[in-house]
Amino acid sequence: MIPKTQRRIVLASRPPGEPVESNFRLEEAAMPEPQHGEVLVRMMYLSADPYMRGRMRDGASYAAPIGIGQVMGGGGVGEVVASKHATLKVGDIVEDRLGWQEYAIAGGANTRRIDPVIAPISTANGILGMPGMTAWFGLFEIGQPRPGETVVVSAASGAVGQVVGQLAKMAGCRVVGIAGGAKKCAYVQDELGFDACVDYKAAGDLGAALRAACPKGIDVYFENVGGAIYDAVTLQMNTWGRIALCGAISQYNHEKPEMAPRLPGLFVGKRVTMRGFIVSDFAGKYDPARALMGEMVQTGKLKFREDIVQGLENAPRAFIGLLRGDNFGKLQIKVGDEPAGLPHRR
Amino acid sequence: MIPKTQRRIVLASRPPGEPVESNFRLEEAAMPEPQHGEVLVRMMYLSADPYMRGRMRDGASYAAPIGIGQVMGGGGVGEVVASKHATLKVGDIVEDRLGWQEYAIAGGANTRRIDPVIAPISTANGILGMPGMTAWFGLFEIGQPRPGETVVVSAASGAVGQVVGQLAKMAGCRVVGIAGGAKKCAYVQDELGFDACVDYKAAGDLGAALRAACPKGIDVYFENVGGAIYDAVTLQMNTWGRIALCGAISQYNHEKPEMAPRLPGLFVGKRVTMRGFIVSDFAGKYDPARALMGEMVQTGKLKFREDIVQGLENAPRAFIGLLRGDNFGKLQIKVGDEPAGLPHRR
Repeated sequence: MIPKTQRRIVLASRPPGEPVESNFRLEEAAMPEPQHGEVLVRMMYLSADPYMRGRMRDGASYAAPIGIGQVMGGGGVGEVVASKHATLKVGDIVEDRLGWQEYAIAGGANTRRIDPVIAPISTANGILGMPGMTAWFGLFEIGQPRPGETVVVSAASGAVGQVVGQLAKMAGCRVVGIAGGAKKCAYVQDELGFDACVDYKAAGDLGAALRAACPKGIDVYFENVGGAIYDAVTLQMNTWGRIALCGAISQYNHEKPEMAPRLPGLFVGKRVTMRGFIVSDFAGKYDPARALMGEMVQTGKLKFREDIVQGLENAPRAFIGLLRGDNFGKLQIKVGDEPAGLPHRR
Repeated sequence: MIPKTQRRIVLASRPPGEPVESNFRLEEAAMPEPQHGEVLVRMMYLSADPYMRGRMRDGASYAAPIGIGQVMGGGGVGEVVASKHATLKVGDIVEDRLGWQEYAIAGGANTRRIDPVIAPISTANGILGMPGMTAWFGLFEIGQPRPGETVVVSAASGAVGQVVGQLAKMAGCRVVGIAGGAKKCAYVQDELGFDACVDYKAAGDLGAALRAACPKGIDVYFENVGGAIYDAVTLQMNTWGRIALCGAISQYNHEKPEMAPRLPGLFVGKRVTMRGFIVSDFAGKYDPARALMGEMVQTGKLKFREDIVQGLENAPRAFIGLLRGDNFGKLQIKVGDEPAGLPHRR
C-alpha cells in the first residue's frame, strides 16, 4: 500500500557556520506519481555525506546549491514500489540520488539496480557506492601507490578512508590512518589491518606522531580532512609524493578561510603532485571497479563498517554530527524497512 | 697568460632574512690547477638565479647548502684556458656550475660545450640554459597547454617567465604575464607578444585585474612568485587547471612562513593539478628541447632579454636586487671579456 502523503526534509535556511537542526525542516508532501519511464521508490537507506555541506551554501561549487525549501539532496537505496519503466520492476532494489524523503521518483540514467546477493543493500550508499568509488579512483588514479610505499589517509575510519586503507594494504603499501579517538584507531588497526593509526585528538605533536608512524616518510596522502592535519602530513611528504585531494571536512563549516602557513618551497623541492578530484570524473570506469570490489566484499577480503541511524527525522542531527566526526563508519539513515527475503537483510 | 691568483666570492654568513652585502666576501685565492681529465675555465658570465637563495640556508633543500667560507655556487659560461681533458680544447666555450669566481676547474659530466654560432654565449646561462629548460619542461610537461587555453606566468619578464610566455603563444594559447612595473609589462606585451600583462604593483585589486585579462579563466599557471599573486591566480583557475610550481621568489627571504588563507574546496571542485618540479628532473630530455629552442633563437622566433651587470665584485648586490625584482630580464654578471672573433661577441 502506497500512502497518500510522505515525509521529507527540506533546507529551511542556510547555516552561517556549523549547521543546526533549525536549518532543516521536516514536512509532509503529496505522494509523487511516476510518469512514463519512471518508477516510485520507497527509501530504505539515506546516505549522508560531507560534500552535502557544500550544497547548503549559496555559492558556486561543483554541485549546484540546494534551494531554500527544496528537499535535501543525497544518495539513497530503496525499493521500487510502482513502475512505468521498461526494465525496472516492482520489488527491484535501486540506488540513485533520491534525496532526504520517504519516497522518490527515479528511473533516469543514474538509477542503478542493486544485486542484494553481493552484500547488504545499504552498501550501495557506501563501500559499493559513491564512497567506495571515491576511495578506489582517488587512490589508484591519483595516489598511484606502489608496493613498499607509505600511504596515509585521514578520516581513516570514515566511509572513504576505511576503503582507501584496505585497498592500499592489498596494493602492498604501509598504511597509516589518521582518526579521532582510540576506538576508531583501534578499529582501523585491529579490524581493517592498517599498519598504524594516529589519533589526532590525543597525539599532541601530530608531526612527531606521523614521523613515528611513517619512518620512511609519506609517498601518498589521501586527503579527507584538511587544516592542521594537512599541514602536518605535507611536511612529511617524500620526494615524488602524490596528494589526492578528496575533501577537507575540517573546513566545511568555516565561513571565512582559515589562515595557514605557506610552505612554498616544499612542493617544489619534493616534486609533490597534488590533484583534486570528484568521483564522478571516473564514472565511465565504475563498473569494473565495482565488480572487483563487490567480489572482495563478498569474500570478506574487504571489510566495511556502517553507522546506521534510525528514522528520517534524525537525519539532520546525524548529518551535523558527521561534520564533527561523531559517526563511526559510513553514516546511513534508515528510513524504511528492508523487504523480507533479502539475503543480507537487517 | 693565466695569473697566479684569482678573485672569488664566498658565503661569509647566512642572512636571517633579506641578504645584505656583508653576507658575502670577495677574496683572493690561488689559481687552481687542472688535473687529468679536467680543464681550467676563465669565467665570462656568471648566472645569478633565485634558487641560490635556498642554498644560502642551512636547511634541507633539494640543493645542498653552501658552507660558510665556500665559494657561492651557480652556473657560468667561460673559456677553456688550460686543458688536460680528452675532448675539451683551449678556446672552447663551456657552461657548467662554475661558481662565483674568475676561474674554475671543470670537465666533468655537467660541462657542456657551447656553440657560439647559435646565439650570444651568455644565453647558455639563460634562454638556452637552465632557465630556458625550466620554462620548456615546466610548461610542456606540467602545464600541458592546449590551443585556446589561457596561460598565466608570474615574473613574466624574468629569465624563465619571458620564455614560458613566448612558448605558450607558439602553442596557441592566450598568454597573460604578471610583472612588476610598467616597463616590464610593456616589454612582455609589445616585444614578446604576450596578450596582456598585469602590473601587480599598480593593479590594486589583483583579482579584478586578472579577471579582466583572463575573461575565460586560467587553465595553466606557471608559478614563479608565490604569495598574494599565487592566491589571486588560484582563485581564477578553471576546472582541470594545471599549476606548474617552479618557484616562489616572494617567499625566499622569509624566515618564518607567511600566513595565507586556506582554500580547501577550490582544488577539489576544480580538479586542479599542482605539481612541483626541478628542471634537472628532465635532464634526459634537454638536448632535443635545446635544439628546437636554439633554432627559434637563431631565427628570431624566440626573443630574450638579459640584464648584464659588470664585474664579479657586483654579483652580491645584483643578486640581492634579483630577489627584490630589480633586474629586467635574465641576470648575468659579466666577469671577463669574450674572446675576439665570436660571432655574437659583446
